[in-house]
Amino acid sequence: MRTPSTGSRDDGHRRPTAGRRRDLRATAPVPQPPWRRLVNPFTPLELLSADQVEAIHQAGLVILRDIGMEVLGTTAVDRFAAAGAGDGVRVERPDGTATRAADGRGVVGRVRLDPDFAAGLVARAPARFELAARNPARRLVFGDRHLVVCAVGGPAFVSDLDRGRRPGTQADLEAYLRVIGALDVIHQEGGGPLEAQDMPVATRHLDLYRAQATLLDKAWQCSAFGRGVVDDALEVAAIALGTTRAGLLADPALMTIVNSNSPLRLDGPMADGLVAMAEAGQAVVATPFTLAGAMTPATLAGALAQQHAEALFMVALTQLVRPGAPVVYGGFTSNVDMRTGSPSFGTPEYVQGQLATGQLARHVGLPWRTSNVTASPVADVQAATESAMSAWGAVTAGANLLYQGAGWLEGGLTASFEKLVLDAELLGSLAAVLAPVEVSADTLGLDAIADVGPGGHFLGSPHTLARYETAFHRPMLAEQRTFEAWADDGARTATERANATWKRLLAEYEVPSLPPDRAEALEAFVTRRKRELLAGA
Amino acid sequence: MRTPSTGSRDDGHRRPTAGRRRDLRATAPVPQPPWRRLVNPFTPLELLSADQVEAIHQAGLVILRDIGMEVLGTTAVDRFAAAGAGDGVRVERPDGTATRAADGRGVVGRVRLDPDFAAGLVARAPARFELAARNPARRLVFGDRHLVVCAVGGPAFVSDLDRGRRPGTQADLEAYLRVIGALDVIHQEGGGPLEAQDMPVATRHLDLYRAQATLLDKAWQCSAFGRGVVDDALEVAAIALGTTRAGLLADPALMTIVNSNSPLRLDGPMADGLVAMAEAGQAVVATPFTLAGAMTPATLAGALAQQHAEALFMVALTQLVRPGAPVVYGGFTSNVDMRTGSPSFGTPEYVQGQLATGQLARHVGLPWRTSNVTASPVADVQAATESAMSAWGAVTAGANLLYQGAGWLEGGLTASFEKLVLDAELLGSLAAVLAPVEVSADTLGLDAIADVGPGGHFLGSPHTLARYETAFHRPMLAEQRTFEAWADDGARTATERANATWKRLLAEYEVPSLPPDRAEALEAFVTRRKRELLAGA
Repeated sequence: MRTPSTGSRDDGHRRPTAGRRRDLRATAPVPQPPWRRLVNPFTPLELLSADQVEAIHQAGLVILRDIGMEVLGTTAVDRFAAAGAGDGVRVERPDGTATRAADGRGVVGRVRLDPDFAAGLVARAPARFELAARNPARRLVFGDRHLVVCAVGGPAFVSDLDRGRRPGTQADLEAYLRVIGALDVIHQEGGGPLEAQDMPVATRHLDLYRAQATLLDKAWQCSAFGRGVVDDALEVAAIALGTTRAGLLADPALMTIVNSNSPLRLDGPMADGLVAMAEAGQAVVATPFTLAGAMTPATLAGALAQQHAEALFMVALTQLVRPGAPVVYGGFTSNVDMRTGSPSFGTPEYVQGQLATGQLARHVGLPWRTSNVTASPVADVQAATESAMSAWGAVTAGANLLYQGAGWLEGGLTASFEKLVLDAELLGSLAAVLAPVEVSADTLGLDAIADVGPGGHFLGSPHTLARYETAFHRPMLAEQRTFEAWADDGARTATERANATWKRLLAEYEVPSLPPDRAEALEAFVTRRKRELLAGA
Repeated sequence: MRTPSTGSRDDGHRRPTAGRRRDLRATAPVPQPPWRRLVNPFTPLELLSADQVEAIHQAGLVILRDIGMEVLGTTAVDRFAAAGAGDGVRVERPDGTATRAADGRGVVGRVRLDPDFAAGLVARAPARFELAARNPARRLVFGDRHLVVCAVGGPAFVSDLDRGRRPGTQADLEAYLRVIGALDVIHQEGGGPLEAQDMPVATRHLDLYRAQATLLDKAWQCSAFGRGVVDDALEVAAIALGTTRAGLLADPALMTIVNSNSPLRLDGPMADGLVAMAEAGQAVVATPFTLAGAMTPATLAGALAQQHAEALFMVALTQLVRPGAPVVYGGFTSNVDMRTGSPSFGTPEYVQGQLATGQLARHVGLPWRTSNVTASPVADVQAATESAMSAWGAVTAGANLLYQGAGWLEGGLTASFEKLVLDAELLGSLAAVLAPVEVSADTLGLDAIADVGPGGHFLGSPHTLARYETAFHRPMLAEQRTFEAWADDGARTATERANATWKRLLAEYEVPSLPPDRAEALEAFVTRRKRELLAGA
């Protein structure tokens, strides 16, 4: 007869108690494997047949040929026009006018690209490139089977369990950057994890760049909203890396996200930022933000065709500006909830979009980006499930850049301190899945199995003791004690434990010091630029 | 300059608000796609090289040859002894004795199998089989690329947010079975989701079987702890399906988990249950419960070699009893936390174990089982992350049976009502990822893209409206409204919403009626058997 004590129904009725000791996590440093690059050993899952990939690719090219992109401002329109009509580009300006407003913003052009011309430009982009970081051991590789994990970028709000959801501040931003710096599974910073709404808009990016350059020795992303913020990022990066603009051109360090405004529109400041980045040889992540049902057709095929058109358009523009400029194919196809029109994230459609996007990006030979996303307003089971869906989607789709890898909540409106740590836990676990397995006489351990014998126990076996420290991935947060031990210790959920963990990481973090001359030069530059910008405002 | 309103940093700053309406979930039935079989379209991820698979396979056979399994009781030992020494089997009984205690439990034999003999038996097992259910539309296929999702089985405790964690009762059991019945993503019941500790031990299985047979029209699992409980399950299943034991033999309906007691021991009652199931032609899931570092070496290769040996031993026994009996290769390799000895679940080692187990099972041509697991004491982010890790591991490893698919908490000690629904949400999303994608002129929607044009909106497009109802997977629980709408509505976490959802599912569930003659026969059988068992006790 089956009873709770028999262990007849597998799993859980028998817990080994030998060797159980007091949990040391409260006093030891937060356990983490060291920073390391990730190489994905798995062949990506194939959602689409080769014919389907080709059909979507061709549909994207047809969109660029027959419908084209609407481009605001003058920079990009001029670039395309200069490439020469009859040479595969057709640029139309409304009312046949070439006049433009003083700031260039009033100008709208429709740009159509012939398929061969578009494909020829895309073919100039490198299949793989690297980005420098202050710490040379933290150089990044984009392409092949490399997977770069990037932190959250862009939210307006910040949240934690103590103070709830609130507009971001510079103090929040700097604390958040320190935790990003402390989390070794995060390779790259995402261009400002939250908006410091207490800082003047005109100079906010300088405060961000200074914080990134001084608090982190990881690579960081910059803003792309206009040429000015890109120029300032180049200066700050050059100072922090001890190089020059020419040095950055030869060995790029910066990356930024450029979004098209779907459907089929490229805003002026984004176009300006894209051009400025490509001119300087820095990396652009060309990302259509395509929510199926709202910004694209309500079909995966239609959403992907449009995404592909927009992404290739932006990639083509980078290559028109500078052949060989580093560029990433950005995929961000999700869907709306058709009942409410609300964006949904981490959905099955999102995962299918990731798998297909990987296939499309490999079809055109580009590194590609996806994201770790959730629509949940808080760091709960929905957030965890949607994030796990999208992170697994990224890994199985063979993504090269997991942007928004850690911290994102609420469809990108909020950066959560707890979610940052919870995502890092998820990603640490996924990273460990990618580690190779050793099969040898030593690891098969037949002698140990014979020595222990039927009914024995391996906890005290020499084979086990020799591997005591390194046998298994060690999580930061996971609760593995008995229910009673957990309850006696406060019955804290993982999100509550993450609250304690980010505070420990923040307290433990040692800011990697910038050489004094660079720190001084950085301070002087920021001071001067702030003065200029505020005088100009 | 980047500001919160510009949408420069992709994702989330722009939410379409057109069409946003009041959420109808509070009054409409819980949304679910209909019950359907799942076929996994993806080529499984390969963690191991072909050489590594072969090395582990051979190591498993060497373990069976040189160390063997310790078998308690007489049934299995006698079966192996009858197969003939010198014929590939060597059976040793301690002290050279063939005597046995009256109940057979005191007897211990060591059984060693020659590799050819073991492999020959394993080769008799079918690569694919089906199980009948009361509802013929809910027949199950095990093997090939089919994925069967099974509910939790075995916990001693039950929990929900209202009453916390407590010993299970028959009332809990029956409520839990109803929710399992209501959740269409769950294909099969798992053999009792929780232990009804308020019922007499001797007859508890009869109350379980009666509840399974009357409350569900899905296939259900039975207990395997001894021959008696298997016999009773056969009677109940035959009555409920309107068939006979011979009918069940020709068209099996039952399945049970048989665990070895790792390392390398098969307990008497489990061996008896295995033999009884195989004799009756019902399906056994031969599952070593191998926690690396405690019950196996602290290496993945060693854990897998031992798992493989134990699984093949049990598979061989089923085929010795009845060639062609349906059997599933059970994988349950996880690891302990080396600091505490506590079992860990949903770890990277667990996922690697799943990927490798899939390769080993395909190597020997058997359908295989894995589980959705977590060590978390509550339905929190840890539980969600570990469950997502193991569910994605199952899908990417090409599992045929996801046992413990929904409801499991706390390393299998607790069945949670909220976790049942939260897991069903995860699995519903994963199931939708497996759906095929249509790429056609219609789905590419180039006309719709042209009609909407740059800067337009697809929510009102005829192409979208034609797909309004079916465009996207509809989640049960996911929150997609604004933070403010969510906060105004009570700021409930996904786990809190799951609490409301399981109550609605429980209230909405219509018990599929058993024909009156079968219901009467079932009642009479249970009454008679209870009397017999209580008289005998």
